[in-house]
Parts: sequence; structure tokens; C-alpha cells
Amino acid sequence: MSAIITVDWGTTRFRAARLDASGAVLEAIEDPRGGILQMTGEATGFERYLADKLGPWLGDAPVLMAGMIGSRQGWIETPYVEAPASLSAIAGKLQRVPFAAAPAFVVPGVVCRAASGALDVMRGEETQILGAMALESIEQGLIVLPGTHSKWTRVENGQITGFATSMTGELFDLLGTHGLLARTMTPGAFDGTSFLAGVERARAPGGLSHLLFGVRTEGLLNGLSGEGQHNFLSGLLIGAEIAGMRSLDPDAGAAYVIASSELAKRYGLALTHFDITATILSGETCAHAGLLALAQHAELLS
Amino acid sequence: MSAIITVDWGTTRFRAARLDASGAVLEAIEDPRGGILQMTGEATGFERYLADKLGPWLGDAPVLMAGMIGSRQGWIETPYVEAPASLSAIAGKLQRVPFAAAPAFVVPGVVCRAASGALDVMRGEETQILGAMALESIEQGLIVLPGTHSKWTRVENGQITGFATSMTGELFDLLGTHGLLARTMTPGAFDGTSFLAGVERARAPGGLSHLLFGVRTEGLLNGLSGEGQHNFLSGLLIGAEIAGMRSLDPDAGAAYVIASSELAKRYGLALTHFDITATILSGETCAHAGLLALAQHAELLS
Repeated sequence: MSAIITVDWGTTRFRAARLDASGAVLEAIEDPRGGILQMTGEATGFERYLADKLGPWLGDAPVLMAGMIGSRQGWIETPYVEAPASLSAIAGKLQRVPFAAAPAFVVPGVVCRAASGALDVMRGEETQILGAMALESIEQGLIVLPGTHSKWTRVENGQITGFATSMTGELFDLLGTHGLLARTMTPGAFDGTSFLAGVERARAPGGLSHLLFGVRTEGLLNGLSGEGQHNFLSGLLIGAEIAGMRSLDPDAGAAYVIASSELAKRYGLALTHFDITATILSGETCAHAGLLALAQHAELLS
Repeated sequence: MSAIITVDWGTTRFRAARLDASGAVLEAIEDPRGGILQMTGEATGFERYLADKLGPWLGDAPVLMAGMIGSRQGWIETPYVEAPASLSAIAGKLQRVPFAAAPAFVVPGVVCRAASGALDVMRGEETQILGAMALESIEQGLIVLPGTHSKWTRVENGQITGFATSMTGELFDLLGTHGLLARTMTPGAFDGTSFLAGVERARAPGGLSHLLFGVRTEGLLNGLSGEGQHNFLSGLLIGAEIAGMRSLDPDAGAAYVIASSELAKRYGLALTHFDITATILSGETCAHAGLLALAQHAELLS
């Protein structure tokens, strides 16, 4: 018997699992071409897709969905909850969607004004953060979610009090594919020396737009190989993210990092270089724990 | 009678003029598809192209060429002169190319270690800088050349003592064409309010990768239009360039800006916002004056 069905429905990918009441995974599926941008955008399209994918799992257990499924391009636009946001505030704003086969809910994202003064938003990460808080009993701390758009989140008194996004992964993809740097760079295996040289360079003044040009001159004048340049760029962008976030949160001395093993390795090294102690957590485990905590808090479990 | 034939030969464009001994332009031509990347890469290809283009101008007057024509992808790779670099040091390294129809020379670029610790290079800009120094009698000062790769150059005792590149224009093109921000941005007319909001945002902490995400949230949550986002991004990137360069050169209080009218307007506004007084100079006029000064110094004029 499933206690809950969890869905991580992003722009490019659909993932679901059925869990028992302890949070153990009974079964899981993934569709790498099931992202919301692959759907027609109509509500009936999302409904039919979900019924098809989850078929025999559906019944009394609640379906909780996190991610871009709650955005304007998703099934139903779910308003952001304002930070400071507690588990209870987010659980109180679960948005029920019309779905015949099971009770189904979308988790709202969170909005805040970052310490830079810019408005900032997350959708999906809040669920992993709530899961990390539940699993690690975090009342105070810093939680980092590296990725295309990295999120640095401050937790105080058991609430998400603020966060800031860094477009690190997106810049890495753009600069590795188009423009001057891409011309001489080659994707390749991880190379810790070039990576850490990039992390260290990020501590220099001059600003990121300037330091990026140094990737080119390392190749042109210092003979750094195409693969070395790619690793240097990765280190430079991750280092710039850490330096920037530390300028917003100077006390950052330890962080939970929710990441896949490849990103966890890079962020672990870079954070250590900045004297920040990293504790690595699994994204999938955190997402499951977050959805379970939300369902419990909203009294959706039978 | 021409005293000198000037050539600005870049990656995408070819421009040439014939000047009299006072530097006045007698005649000028431009080929927007004559850049070095459009050539075959063989020396004979460059030679034939130049003979075809300049035909009746050619004779005794020296042909001086600046730009990427001296790079590895150009006619002849011309080694960089190390900063501090004087007019006389650069004039002493003019590289003659084999060309039957006239005496022809390539101006070398300049290399330095920027104040950030990164190696930095220029090719073509050194000629405009030498021209600005000649035209404005600059012995000390800051010369800014905005563009795809902006160059901030420090002049002391009549020499180029150091400089730093910022990939501002390239980032603007990449982010306006690909990725998250491009999805909701629309190129449009200049809008000073959105532009200056972006410049001001660049003064905030958090780092550029973070502040870029704010372009998205200004649209999502503050209703900034697609054109407004494009102007905000322009201001943010130019502002980040200025803030970064000021971190390398805290005394910057005045600058000569060598730019086209559109860029001059944007940089003039942004520099004023940072309390830097800008004096605008024309790129073409500076390039001509630089080549003339080099030819005079190398005693190439008859």
C-alpha cells in the first residue's frame, strides 16, 4: 500500500515514486521526455499524462507534485508563498488540481527579496529544502542547491527566511557552447588542478565579466588545453557563485549541499577552498522527505 | 597624394582609408564581409584581397594594418608587445608583410598582467589608444574602449602600463539570444529608466551570476516588459563592468571613452552614475591618428 505518491515535474523531466508511510520507496518511474515544456500546455493534457503514467498506483494515496508544474507554463499556476516560509505555511497553500483518479496537489514555490535587493523565486527547491530540514533536523543553517540556477537558502527558527539564485549552470552551458571561449574549449573529464585554479581565480577582483576573459588568455598564453579551459571555467563560475553568495551572507561557514554526485564533488572542493564545510545530501531523498512532511502536515495521509 | 593608407582588419570587417600627412581622410572604403574569418587563411589570400581592395591607392605610401589581421588566424602572427608599452616600443615592432604593391606593416598587440592577476591581451585597441594619446596629449589617464570585449587601459608617463578586458558585449549577445532571460526579453529602443535601474542594480552585492537572475524576476514579479528587461540587462552588464574595473583601479574618477554614438550614450550615462567623468572620442578618428603616429615614429612617411 502506498502512503503517498511523489512527483517531481520539471521543465524537461517527469519523475514519480510511491512511498510507504516511513518514506521508503516502493517503486519509481522516470520519463526524461515528460517535462512540462513537452506537453500541450492544456490542463487536460497534464491530467491525461499523469493518469497514464501513474495508472495502477492511483487510488486513495495523495499525489504531491513539486517543480515547474506549478508555474504559468504548468498545469495550474500556484502563487508563491512569501518568505519567511515555514513548513506549515507551505503545507497550508498546497493547491489541489482537478484530477479524477486520486487527490492531487501542487506544492507552491517561495518568493523573497534577496539580500542583494533583487526579488528572487524558487519552485521545487523549497520541497527539497523542507526535506533536508526534516531529515537533518535543521533549525538554523545554510542549504545550497547547485545546478542550472543554484539556490542558496538561509534557514532560521525552522523557516526558510531568504535565498538567492546564481545562474551558474546556465552560464557554464552558454559559454561552453557559444562565443569566444567555446571556440577553444573541449568538454572532458574532471581535472582538479584546472578546476581549483579557476576557483582560486574567482577570489580576485575585477568582476566575473573580466575574469571570464582569463579563460581565453590561459589557453592563448599559458598553454592550458581545451579540456583544462573547460575545467577552469567550471571552477571560476562555481567560485564566483560562492564569492558572490558570501558577500550576501558573510557568516557562511558551513552548508548542506543537495546535489548529484558530480556536482557534489565540485561544490565540495570549491566550498572547502573557501573554508566552508559542506555536508552532502541526495536530492531525491530530500524531495521525498519534503513531500512526505508536507502531506503529513496537511493531514493528507490516511 | 596619400601619405599613409590605414587598414582596420578585424574578424568580421575590413576598413581602409587614405590620409594626407595631416591625418585628413582623402578617401575611405569598408567591406562588412571582409573580415579575416571570411578569408581562406593563406597568406596569398590576404595579399590578393588587399591588392584588389586598395588597387589604385597603392604605391609609395605605407599601408599600416591594425586588428586581428596580426593574430594566429590572420595574415602573419605578430607577437604581443609587453606592457608598459610606449608608442616607440610598438612602432619598433611593426611587422612587415610580404606584399609586392606597397610597403605594408601589421601593428602588434599588447599583453599585460591585469591587476586581477589574469593575463590580458589586446589587438587593434592599442592603435586607438595611441591615437587618443596623440590627439588629446594624454600622459596620464584611463581610456575605456567599450564593445564585445571592453578594454580599460591605464596610461602613465605616456605609456600603456596596464589594462583589463570585460566580456560585456559578448555576454549581452549570449544572454539576449539563448537561455532563460532570452525567452522573455525583446530587443527594442533605448529606455533610460530601465537601463539606469540595471546600472544601479550592479552596485548591489551578490555577484553577477546572481544579479542576472534579477532580470527574470523583474519581468515575472515587477511587470518589466520584454524591452525593459533588455535595457535593464544592458545597464546591469555595463554597470557590472564599471564596478569590476573600479575594484581593480579605485582611483578611476575620469575616463576617455572611445566608442560609437550608441555605446557612448550608454557608457556616458553609466559612468556618470558611478561618478566617473567621461570624455567621448571617435574610434575611427583615434585609429587613424594612432596609425599616423606609428608611421611617423617608425619614419615610414616620405
